Amino acid sequence: MVKVGIIGGSGYTGGELLRLLVNHPQVQIKSVTSRTHKGKPVWELFPNLRSFTELTFDDVEPDSLAEQCDIVFTAVPHGVTFGIAPVIRHAGKRLIDLGADYRFRDLDNYETWYKVKHEDPDGALEAVYGLPELLRDRIAGANLVANPGCYPTSAILGAAPLLSNGIVDLQGITIDSKSGVSGSGRNLRLSSLFSECSSNFNPYGAPGHRHTPEIEQAFSAIAGEEVRVTFAPHLLPVVRGILTTMYFLATCDITQKELDELYTEYYRNEYFVRVCISDLPEIKAVQGSNFCDIAVRLDERTQRIMVVSAIDNLVKGASGQAIQNMNIMFGIEETTSLRCVPIFP
Amino acid sequence: MVKVGIIGGSGYTGGELLRLLVNHPQVQIKSVTSRTHKGKPVWELFPNLRSFTELTFDDVEPDSLAEQCDIVFTAVPHGVTFGIAPVIRHAGKRLIDLGADYRFRDLDNYETWYKVKHEDPDGALEAVYGLPELLRDRIAGANLVANPGCYPTSAILGAAPLLSNGIVDLQGITIDSKSGVSGSGRNLRLSSLFSECSSNFNPYGAPGHRHTPEIEQAFSAIAGEEVRVTFAPHLLPVVRGILTTMYFLATCDITQKELDELYTEYYRNEYFVRVCISDLPEIKAVQGSNFCDIAVRLDERTQRIMVVSAIDNLVKGASGQAIQNMNIMFGIEETTSLRCVPIFP
Amino acid sequence: MVKVGIIGGSGYTGGELLRLLVNHPQVQIKSVTSRTHKGKPVWELFPNLRSFTELTFDDVEPDSLAEQCDIVFTAVPHGVTFGIAPVIRHAGKRLIDLGADYRFRDLDNYETWYKVKHEDPDGALEAVYGLPELLRDRIAGANLVANPGCYPTSAILGAAPLLSNGIVDLQGITIDSKSGVSGSGRNLRLSSLFSECSSNFNPYGAPGHRHTPEIEQAFSAIAGEEVRVTFAPHLLPVVRGILTTMYFLATCDITQKELDELYTEYYRNEYFVRVCISDLPEIKAVQGSNFCDIAVRLDERTQRIMVVSAIDNLVKGASGQAIQNMNIMFGIEETTSLRCVPIFP
Amino acid sequence: MVKVGIIGGSGYTGGELLRLLVNHPQVQIKSVTSRTHKGKPVWELFPNLRSFTELTFDDVEPDSLAEQCDIVFTAVPHGVTFGIAPVIRHAGKRLIDLGADYRFRDLDNYETWYKVKHEDPDGALEAVYGLPELLRDRIAGANLVANPGCYPTSAILGAAPLLSNGIVDLQGITIDSKSGVSGSGRNLRLSSLFSECSSNFNPYGAPGHRHTPEIEQAFSAIAGEEVRVTFAPHLLPVVRGILTTMYFLATCDITQKELDELYTEYYRNEYFVRVCISDLPEIKAVQGSNFCDIAVRLDERTQRIMVVSAIDNLVKGASGQAIQNMNIMFGIEETTSLRCVPIFP
Repeated sequence: MVKVGIIGGSGYTGGELLRLLVNHPQVQIKSVTSRTHKGKPVWELFPNLRSFTELTFDDVEPDSLAEQCDIVFTAVPHGVTFGIAPVIRHAGKRLIDLGADYRFRDLDNYETWYKVKHEDPDGALEAVYGLPELLRDRIAGANLVANPGCYPTSAILGAAPLLSNGIVDLQGITIDSKSGVSGSGRNLRLSSLFSECSSNFNPYGAPGHRHTPEIEQAFSAIAGEEVRVTFAPHLLPVVRGILTTMYFLATCDITQKELDELYTEYYRNEYFVRVCISDLPEIKAVQGSNFCDIAVRLDERTQRIMVVSAIDNLVKGASGQAIQNMNIMFGIEETTSLRCVPIFP
Repeated sequence: MVKVGIIGGSGYTGGELLRLLVNHPQVQIKSVTSRTHKGKPVWELFPNLRSFTELTFDDVEPDSLAEQCDIVFTAVPHGVTFGIAPVIRHAGKRLIDLGADYRFRDLDNYETWYKVKHEDPDGALEAVYGLPELLRDRIAGANLVANPGCYPTSAILGAAPLLSNGIVDLQGITIDSKSGVSGSGRNLRLSSLFSECSSNFNPYGAPGHRHTPEIEQAFSAIAGEEVRVTFAPHLLPVVRGILTTMYFLATCDITQKELDELYTEYYRNEYFVRVCISDLPEIKAVQGSNFCDIAVRLDERTQRIMVVSAIDNLVKGASGQAIQNMNIMFGIEETTSLRCVPIFP
Repeated sequence: MVKVGIIGGSGYTGGELLRLLVNHPQVQIKSVTSRTHKGKPVWELFPNLRSFTELTFDDVEPDSLAEQCDIVFTAVPHGVTFGIAPVIRHAGKRLIDLGADYRFRDLDNYETWYKVKHEDPDGALEAVYGLPELLRDRIAGANLVANPGCYPTSAILGAAPLLSNGIVDLQGITIDSKSGVSGSGRNLRLSSLFSECSSNFNPYGAPGHRHTPEIEQAFSAIAGEEVRVTFAPHLLPVVRGILTTMYFLATCDITQKELDELYTEYYRNEYFVRVCISDLPEIKAVQGSNFCDIAVRLDERTQRIMVVSAIDNLVKGASGQAIQNMNIMFGIEETTSLRCVPIFP
Repeated sequence: MVKVGIIGGSGYTGGELLRLLVNHPQVQIKSVTSRTHKGKPVWELFPNLRSFTELTFDDVEPDSLAEQCDIVFTAVPHGVTFGIAPVIRHAGKRLIDLGADYRFRDLDNYETWYKVKHEDPDGALEAVYGLPELLRDRIAGANLVANPGCYPTSAILGAAPLLSNGIVDLQGITIDSKSGVSGSGRNLRLSSLFSECSSNFNPYGAPGHRHTPEIEQAFSAIAGEEVRVTFAPHLLPVVRGILTTMYFLATCDITQKELDELYTEYYRNEYFVRVCISDLPEIKAVQGSNFCDIAVRLDERTQRIMVVSAIDNLVKGASGQAIQNMNIMFGIEETTSLRCVPIFP
């Protein structure tokens, strides 16, 4: 049994880790921390978990957690993990950070966009970017995994087959993303209120959203060349789900059939990527699951290639991917506890 | 392996049976019928099932289905099962009907409310009402199970502890229910359109909804005495979920603590019933699951007892309960394939 | 021109006052206060008002407001108006309070349910309960109007014809109300977040919600006799709208036709009450408007009478009714600026 | 008084014409047709109109309508207006078509994309494209106005200042649009059901949606040069609203400030266009109104210009714009009956 600790367990990604872990046959949850809710039963904050766990939130220090656990998940605001990761690693335990602190190779990039100093350059050097479909082998041996952002996950999985095959112009890639409100977390802010979001839709933080450099870092790595993108996130009046629509200019003659084959082949062995040939992805088709549904479409009139990808931001975009990473790190079958069918309708 | 057939598999309850059965470790789905969609892959109508099944809809006759299967689920309009159930039973196979055709002891009652002739009185005599928490033993030996209606399930589970203990007035019970739109099925009707339902809420078919006599039959059986209720269903702008609020007049002095104990004790051994002591049920806490969350509250000022129960209408209110019944009928552990944690948020 | 001031203008009822007043032909808005947002343009908090007004939030004291204005609206938490109303009245100006502070005849009742001391007994004595359909004449001469609560408005308008005609049992009245989330205001609270409310539905504060004594006070006044009710509010996943379903026991033989006539006759001259004979109210049919749609239905099997009423909680349940009161108080045609057609779909 | 007839009045655009016309001080509605609902009171299909009109749907022929009316609105499927427009014009009356039949200069274009023969080339020649902000003068003298599509309205108003100033690359314009479900009309189709749309989001008909050539025709006319665009519509889980995000490549050095001034200046005299400088458009800020909110943003890192525009698809995207056109055609103040404040929240 893998012994697990969760730091920052009262938010939506924390709750989603719990939802997916309470039934995981090879996991034992040792501790879930929340400073604010210390002492409360976990199910008071997550009523879906009633009868599944008797855990209460506690407020132990990282070193004590490191003693109890084989792996720690951190679901905390950026900057906070710098005070945790070194402790866990020095105790010889593993860590998966669901935040942005360890996602960047170039620490200047991190500091510019996140406006805090990076306090753990050693950790950054060692950390592996936790996108299993691209970096499975490195994740298997990692002690510190930086779980990808939700928008980047949808963009990277959607673009990888094009970028790695050199068939699109690397300038002028446009990424129009739409995310459900749970992506903003469980914090109290005006823009997350039901009365503000419901029946509404709007772009935000565009251009200039913090996920831009994370996307560019991955796109550049795949393409083997510096890539700049225009990225615009929008807020959908749904709880879960990200749908990303990307627009590329084809640099060679290619047919719809060839594109379909390219994607099908690229993801042939990936359980969690489903390529849509005859229809287009929709977020409800992946709701509650770790799947990423992808379609690629050629606009013959303009030689543009449109790629659409859909994920559940709390699962493949956060906690599900984290568990996928954990499974890989501990040699557990990769899909364990992640095979549930999406909820439809 | 239990071999399963589904008749009428393209609607929401059919899709929900599929969602819960494709991962059931002791089930093999042999056939899913749909006259309209014959030949189409099942995942075209249920995009969540993409990569889970290669089944296509077919249009076989009941006798052929009876040959292939150990059990048949019927998810068809009322009146239709009369042409199916006798065939299945004569072939020595079992059937769970998700419709209303076999729910009534008193066939006049059925004919009055459903306005069709009952064409299988023998079947009606043999059929068992499939509410496991009340009739588990009889279900275990049944060949024909009438799966309860969604509203009745929520009302009966909520009221049973009070009715069976003789502590409420049996006249003047008021049942105010609210259901998600998926309860109206996948048929094309104006009142199910997004633009009509969204941001809306309204009662419908009240008084006089067809689930009234089903509720009264069960309430009367539990109370041991004729019960009449006022029942008003309402349409919620959510996809899944029923929340039922019931109002009773207490006929004896009782405290909140005693009520809580009564409910806790009554459902002590029931995996799928969760009694809420410190909080009130909400439909999101049972979303996608087979749970029924229940709270009982005393209004000391008026000696009224309020009971609130919440289910997912497609799971405990339909397909989940059907699978629970199937598990019982075949001696499979009752919660098999139904232990998933509700989706929250 | 009536000169108007609004205290507490940054919440939803404040915004709704502004929406309805900026186009009011006989009104000039002099000042809108908000301590938090002082100096900000009003349209920054209410983007619908962009181009309609150049007002900014200010933070003037009540006495200064009294100087500038003929009437002041207070949209503030309960207890706060005690520091404002006396100032306005002593300056000889009028006030409409959208809160609960002046709604009660019996101050003990107020103090018991709201858990604060009533600091303005003289004001309470003078205040008129601002439900125009019942108290139009008294409102016309009032200097201090207590605008009714949203739930009470829907319940009282729905019940008045029955209560005033002595045809229902005054014991055991059950009121099951469902409100949109905007009824909880624009405050930051977990239970108002989109991710918590969307796809959800639940009762709250029941039994024992603060609107209970307000409903009982009005019911008793109309019936001429002490009335106790069971009242259970629920939270709907919609922004606007309250639908209230009430259950009464008929104490005499009465037909559906007589009930329809009773309601039609009772509200014959009321522009804002629409009696539904052939269909049932729905909240979308009154969305954005000052209407209250009402239906009465006899359940012949049980001699129960079901009444359904629907309002927009921010309009007839708050700001629209406040403007209706203002119109009456200043001799302006009562429907001025309130004749807009509800938004459908 | 302008005498008005509406052909095809039972759909959402028909209902929206009625909502906006029943209170229009210079209009008298003479007739609303619906073959299906002939004889029914209009409010039965539009419960918001209860007490506003005693009209019933009728089924008169176009010639009879032409006799009674000064102007006829057609809200019918494409191809149908060819049987109506000639009759109305020959009778010397005016017509505004809310469909696509008269929107195209190049009839081949129409026939290719809409797959029907254009049966009224004379009408097409005479018709004026009814986008008042661009073609006000020509609309004033028109007898036949082709009301623009909803997506094109949002795209054209958003792009016009850039296109007419020659500061963007005309190749590679990307238009990512998101529309509420009411845009699909009131027809019964699976993809419009609440249970399919709610909590969902997906692209559809892309690339290759029929509004593409309409957008290209207008963009080309404004730019004075052939323009091709990539256009991808998506379905939002909201009833009303279109938000369009467009991506352009700047062909000259330009600053954010200059872009803001360009837009502000371009729309200085337009009541219905509101330029957002410090914030971004959102659909709720225009809900129920004829406004188009627009923001332009420079992405300095990539020299891309992002334009965001928001309209209510049933108002500025259909019926409101039609009434705006009617006002212009009859010399009525252009904003008459269209000055209502958007509903927020």
